[in-house]
Amino acid sequence: MTDPIRLGIAGLGTVGRGVVRIVQTHRDLLASRAGRPVEIVAVSARSRKDRGVPLDAYAWEDDPVALARRDDIDVFVEVMGGAAGPAKDATEAALAAGKDVVTANKALLAIHGHALAEAAEATGRVIRFEAAVAGGIPVIKALTEGLAGNEIRRVMGVMNGTCNYILTRMENAGLTYDEAFAEADGLGYLEADPELDVGGIDAGHKLALLAAIAFGTRVDFPNVRLEGIGSVTIEDIRQAADMGYKIKLLGVAQMTGRGLEQRMSPCLVPDTSPLGQLQGGTNMVVLEGDAVGQIVLRGAGAGEGPTASAVIGDVIDIARGLRLPTFGQPVGALRQARAAYAAVPAPYYLRLSLVDKPGALAKIAQRLGEAGISIDRMRQYGHEDTAAPVLIVTHRTTRLALDEAIAAFDSTGVVEAPPVAIRIEEV
Amino acid sequence: MTDPIRLGIAGLGTVGRGVVRIVQTHRDLLASRAGRPVEIVAVSARSRKDRGVPLDAYAWEDDPVALARRDDIDVFVEVMGGAAGPAKDATEAALAAGKDVVTANKALLAIHGHALAEAAEATGRVIRFEAAVAGGIPVIKALTEGLAGNEIRRVMGVMNGTCNYILTRMENAGLTYDEAFAEADGLGYLEADPELDVGGIDAGHKLALLAAIAFGTRVDFPNVRLEGIGSVTIEDIRQAADMGYKIKLLGVAQMTGRGLEQRMSPCLVPDTSPLGQLQGGTNMVVLEGDAVGQIVLRGAGAGEGPTASAVIGDVIDIARGLRLPTFGQPVGALRQARAAYAAVPAPYYLRLSLVDKPGALAKIAQRLGEAGISIDRMRQYGHEDTAAPVLIVTHRTTRLALDEAIAAFDSTGVVEAPPVAIRIEEV
Repeated sequence: MTDPIRLGIAGLGTVGRGVVRIVQTHRDLLASRAGRPVEIVAVSARSRKDRGVPLDAYAWEDDPVALARRDDIDVFVEVMGGAAGPAKDATEAALAAGKDVVTANKALLAIHGHALAEAAEATGRVIRFEAAVAGGIPVIKALTEGLAGNEIRRVMGVMNGTCNYILTRMENAGLTYDEAFAEADGLGYLEADPELDVGGIDAGHKLALLAAIAFGTRVDFPNVRLEGIGSVTIEDIRQAADMGYKIKLLGVAQMTGRGLEQRMSPCLVPDTSPLGQLQGGTNMVVLEGDAVGQIVLRGAGAGEGPTASAVIGDVIDIARGLRLPTFGQPVGALRQARAAYAAVPAPYYLRLSLVDKPGALAKIAQRLGEAGISIDRMRQYGHEDTAAPVLIVTHRTTRLALDEAIAAFDSTGVVEAPPVAIRIEEV
Repeated sequence: MTDPIRLGIAGLGTVGRGVVRIVQTHRDLLASRAGRPVEIVAVSARSRKDRGVPLDAYAWEDDPVALARRDDIDVFVEVMGGAAGPAKDATEAALAAGKDVVTANKALLAIHGHALAEAAEATGRVIRFEAAVAGGIPVIKALTEGLAGNEIRRVMGVMNGTCNYILTRMENAGLTYDEAFAEADGLGYLEADPELDVGGIDAGHKLALLAAIAFGTRVDFPNVRLEGIGSVTIEDIRQAADMGYKIKLLGVAQMTGRGLEQRMSPCLVPDTSPLGQLQGGTNMVVLEGDAVGQIVLRGAGAGEGPTASAVIGDVIDIARGLRLPTFGQPVGALRQARAAYAAVPAPYYLRLSLVDKPGALAKIAQRLGEAGISIDRMRQYGHEDTAAPVLIVTHRTTRLALDEAIAAFDSTGVVEAPPVAIRIEEV
């Protein structure tokens, strides 16, 4: 098998440039690992501006769909991004034309992954997307292949580096959310639509892809319960730290007796856990299997080199002859899981502001007790005004019971401000 | 491709039993992921005692070589262990008979891996050994496949859970080395020959395998510089902790301008780093590539479930048609690297016991300066006898320069006991 594997690259932004660089600088290394030369044949991008890498040796296509259909490419590398439009059209065209596809596009797969996987099966082609989830961390491979002997119990991850950067800056530098957000923006860390980052959408796309592989279910992004980091306050970060926790935008997918639970939301995790110790823009994914126990993977979740590394890994897999169904099993074998929410009990962190009167705390404790919630730890802080800040860590309970208790707080007349409740994920 | 993949399992100890359990309990799951049924056809072990799993449905072979040659198996699963003898004979027989091999045997591959890889190529078969390195962590896969687009810069790891358990117990419970060793022994954590664990041999085997894949070199275990944990004292663990470090039995493989450096030795690492935070029997491997940066993998390094998970992952890879050369490249492409030692400079931790006289420290500082070594931090502790304990963290230097300086300490007449010098690995 010494025929070269021929790539057509659509998109010459950060990731595309990185892919070109690796192919150009590691020609011999890639050939010896792939068992055949890896060649770029043609590229496509929105403009022909200078990209800092020589492109003269490659054919140019203005239209990525035309690129995808070229007779002289084996693999269509889609690194344009976007959940629809040219990325979708070109990927469909590539599969229809009998090309394998390597993509970094989490939005495209989270929304159209099922149809694309079917299209790939129809023409016997493969879609690989290691770069779409957690950048350079080979987590799709670990989950689909390395842990294939496991019934997966839970998948968790901090998969949006920008959010983790903002939370880490709030924590370490005492910035408010707005200040940390502005700093991340100034550094160019935010997507054009920042809500993709801070609203948890981008990370939610990634979680939906991991869940499909982990549980053999159809990709179900609409049922990822999304909660961004905009509501996280410096006050809660400080109080959580004081009780031994960090606040992370954590994605969790878990198969429960009531269905598949997928959520992307701020959670407390112990500050001594690998997730709790994750600083800055780094990503971490935790995979839990019945045989293997807990596997933790950590690395850069974005950037030219890490993302291009993942793309090239997929290209070499294809060159080596590895041909798997898109989500590890044929589309027909993927189940449509019932969506569950709040099915898994957990301890909760509660921050309350109570009127400074005798018996106030007793009333709160009573309402919690009536909802079947017991208190693990409680702290009342010194204060200067009439409201007393109170922190409670509950024992394991359901979100439903907690919401009932919180609703019942109203009638006590001792709660000054809306209570803050954040799940403590048991990692 | 709906023919079953048929396994012959040689060895029914902890790992073998785990493999049988997964195949028996996850029949449908494995079939859907592998694309074909996974079946056990025959087994072999030293005795027919009860293993806690039903074996009646499988043919029995007293001789693993006979098992390896059976016409009705596709994959020979070698989970007997041992660097020579039956494991080697049976693996050779399996390859000669045209069977693929999945093994958990690090010693066999570290010593005979090259010849076995050649035998596999001669008959067009594959050898997979994910279970041989870091148990359930899919690190062979991450390195060989996921990071295939990278020039690997460095591979590091804590890959012997028993040693990390002993060091962690010394650190957290204040046990001496002998006490912690006895505790690990009582818990059954030690190999029959404990030197395999505490002497760094077992972990050294694993490092040699990772290095071959990482650098495209022939497996070269004899040139892994081994230093066990027997010389680590509670005193050094405490002093290191006080300066913000942990002591770990750390394997490091690195390609340098002077050749391939492979060492397995106690090192200091920052207590805030992922390696520094690793507690108990858990394993961690750090992979550094030019594009991907640093990838950290963490999980159980031993035990029935994790090791069997890795074996089954390999079996499913084979069932899915993934066929790679043993070390990621054909044997003929692997270079014989020159062995280097102490080629990479590093900071060092130095613990000295100096006579309590004016000018003693100045004499030591002078000798270090003469060897070109500058001091980053220094601490002198209060003491009750005539010898003053002094701790020095040097700036980056070579081991050669440090050894020169230490030799020169003798002539000062102020050093009371042999100095302790431990490398600080920059992670």
